[in-house]
Amino acid sequence: MAQQSASVNRRILLARRPTGEPLESDFRLVTEAVPQVGPGQVLLRTVYLSLDPYMRGRMSDAPSYAKPVGLDEVMVGGTVCRVAASQHPDYAVGEWVLAQSGWQDWALSDGQGLLSLGHAPRNPSYSLGVLGMPGYTGYMGLLDIGQPQPGETVVVAAATGAVGSVVGQIARLKGCRVVGIAGGVEKCRYAVQQLRFDACLDHRSPELAAMLAEVTPDGIDVYFENVGGKVFDAVLARLNPRARVPVCGLISAYNATDLPPGPDRLPALMGTVLRKRIRLQGFIIMQDYPDGFAAFRQVMGRWLEQGQVKYREDVIDGLESASRGLIGLLRGENAGKRIVRVGDEA
Amino acid sequence: MAQQSASVNRRILLARRPTGEPLESDFRLVTEAVPQVGPGQVLLRTVYLSLDPYMRGRMSDAPSYAKPVGLDEVMVGGTVCRVAASQHPDYAVGEWVLAQSGWQDWALSDGQGLLSLGHAPRNPSYSLGVLGMPGYTGYMGLLDIGQPQPGETVVVAAATGAVGSVVGQIARLKGCRVVGIAGGVEKCRYAVQQLRFDACLDHRSPELAAMLAEVTPDGIDVYFENVGGKVFDAVLARLNPRARVPVCGLISAYNATDLPPGPDRLPALMGTVLRKRIRLQGFIIMQDYPDGFAAFRQVMGRWLEQGQVKYREDVIDGLESASRGLIGLLRGENAGKRIVRVGDEA
Repeated sequence: MAQQSASVNRRILLARRPTGEPLESDFRLVTEAVPQVGPGQVLLRTVYLSLDPYMRGRMSDAPSYAKPVGLDEVMVGGTVCRVAASQHPDYAVGEWVLAQSGWQDWALSDGQGLLSLGHAPRNPSYSLGVLGMPGYTGYMGLLDIGQPQPGETVVVAAATGAVGSVVGQIARLKGCRVVGIAGGVEKCRYAVQQLRFDACLDHRSPELAAMLAEVTPDGIDVYFENVGGKVFDAVLARLNPRARVPVCGLISAYNATDLPPGPDRLPALMGTVLRKRIRLQGFIIMQDYPDGFAAFRQVMGRWLEQGQVKYREDVIDGLESASRGLIGLLRGENAGKRIVRVGDEA
Repeated sequence: MAQQSASVNRRILLARRPTGEPLESDFRLVTEAVPQVGPGQVLLRTVYLSLDPYMRGRMSDAPSYAKPVGLDEVMVGGTVCRVAASQHPDYAVGEWVLAQSGWQDWALSDGQGLLSLGHAPRNPSYSLGVLGMPGYTGYMGLLDIGQPQPGETVVVAAATGAVGSVVGQIARLKGCRVVGIAGGVEKCRYAVQQLRFDACLDHRSPELAAMLAEVTPDGIDVYFENVGGKVFDAVLARLNPRARVPVCGLISAYNATDLPPGPDRLPALMGTVLRKRIRLQGFIIMQDYPDGFAAFRQVMGRWLEQGQVKYREDVIDGLESASRGLIGLLRGENAGKRIVRVGDEA
C-alpha cells in the first residue's frame, strides 16, 4: 500500500456522477499539502475508512435524505482516525476518534461530531461496523421498528454484511427463528455456522421463493429490508399478518437508472399492506435515533465480549483502493464489513 | 318500499362473483319463512343495514383478511336491529342491538357479537356510521397510526364518507391543518363549510397534483389512505419526512381486475419510504383494535353532542335497493354514510 506521508494529503474526489454502476473513473485522486491546525482545531490522520452502500446515493444528485457529494468534493465516509495535532481542549495527540472525515489521509476538525475512542481502544476499526453506524442501524431498526417477539420468524437480507449480521444475531438473541439471505454459498455457510442463523439462502438461486417458503413454514413476522428487488418480492408473499418491515436500504436498486418495466405493482403492494396489516417503515439511523448511540455501544460491547455477537471485517489496503472497494461492495463481493486500511495504527 | 313481513324473510344472496364492477345480477333476492327462535336465541328484525366499501372485497374469493361470502350465502353487513323475540337472558323484546346480520329482514342470533343499544337510543342508525365501525376506524387509524400533532397537515380522501369525515374532523380537533379530497364540487363544499376542513379538492380534476401542492404548502404529515390510485400518487410527492400513512382502504382498486400497466413503481415507492422515512401501515379495525370500541363510543358521543363532529347519512329505502346502493357507493355516488332503511323503527 502507498504509505501515508506527513506532508502530502491524498484525497479522493467525486469526479463525475455515475450512471448506473460507478466506474473507477468517476473518482479522482488528488494530492494537497497536509493542512495546518488552527485554534480550536484538531488534525486527524485517517487509519480506517468505512465503505458503505449509502455512498452510492451520495454520488447522485437525485433528491434524498442527505446532500449529495459535490463534484470535485472529497467523498464522504466514516473514519477512525488518530489525533496528529491538537489546538482543541478536548482532544490530545495520539487519541483515537470516530469521525466523518471522508476519503482522505488528513483532515481538520473543530471537534463537531467526533467521538473519542480513548487512547488504546481494543478494536478501533469496530467503531465503523458492529460498534458504529451499521451496528446501530441494525440494532434500532430491528428492535424499535421490527419489534421481534420470541418464536417469531425474522428474515434479513445481505445477511453477512455489516448491518445484516447484527440484525440476525440480535434476532437470535431475542429468541426468534432467523433466516438470512446472502449472495453465494460461502456467505450462507458463514451465516449458519458462525452467526448461528437457522437457515440462509442464496439470493442468486432461481428457486429462492420456493426455498424461502420451505425455511419459513410459519411465515415471516419481521423482514429487515436492506436490498429490495427480487428478495423483497419473495419475502412479500410470505409475510404474516401484522408483519413489520423496517426499510433500511435498497442496495439492489442503487445503481438503477430507470423504473423497471410493468406491470405496475405499486397498487398490489398497497393492497398487501392493507390486507395483511403490514407496517413498512423507512428510517435513517442518526436522524431518527440521534440519542441512543452511547447506550447501544454499551450493550453491543457486552455482547461482543461475551461472544454472543460475532463480527468479521473485509479489509482492503490503501486509500487508492477505496473506489474499487466500493464498486465491489455494491456487487456484494465483500465478506463481512468492508473497510479500508488507510494508514498504520501506530 | 317493500314492507317487512312478519312471516316472510327476504334475504339477498351472493349469486355470482363479480368481475370488475358488481352488477345487480350478481345478487339474488330470495324469500324464506321467518325462523323460529330457540333456547338461548334472539330473533332480530333488521331496521338499518350498513353499506360499506369492504363489501366488494367479500364478494371476491381472492385471499384477504376475511373469509369471502360464499355463493348463495346471504351478503354480510352491519345492521341495527330490534329484538322481536327472545329466549336469551340478556336481551328483551323491543331492545335495539348493533349486529352483523347481513342483508336480510330477519335473523337469529345466540347473542355473540351483539351490542345492546338499549330501548330508546337517540339515533340508532348512527351506530352503523359515526358511532360504529366506520367512525372507530377513522378514530383509531388517525390517532394510533397517524399520530397527528398540532400544526401538522393531514390529508384524507373520500373526505365526506363515513370514515373520511371522522378522520378530518378529529384531525381538526387535534389542531391540524386538514385537507380533504372528494369526488365533486358539492362534496368539497360540504367538507369545507360543514365539516370545517381547511380545503377540499375534487379528485376528478386534472390539476389535482398542482392544487394539492398549493393547499399543502408545508407538505403532508399524515395521509389517511382509503382510496389509492391517483390520489395516492399525488399525495406521495407531497409527503414530508417521517410522514405516517394509515392504510385503511383502497376503494379505487376494489373493482380492478388486472395489475395496471408499467412501469413498475413498486421499487420507487420503497425508495420513497426509505428516503423520507415514511411509515405505511395497514390495519383492520376490529382485528387490530378489538378492545377500544366502548371507549371510542363515549368520546365520539360527547363530540357529537357538543356539535364538534358533524355527521350526515345517505339513506336508501328498502332492502331490495341494497345492491344498487352498494354499486353506487363504489362509484362514489353517496353523500355521507350510506345506509339502507330496511324496516320501520317502531
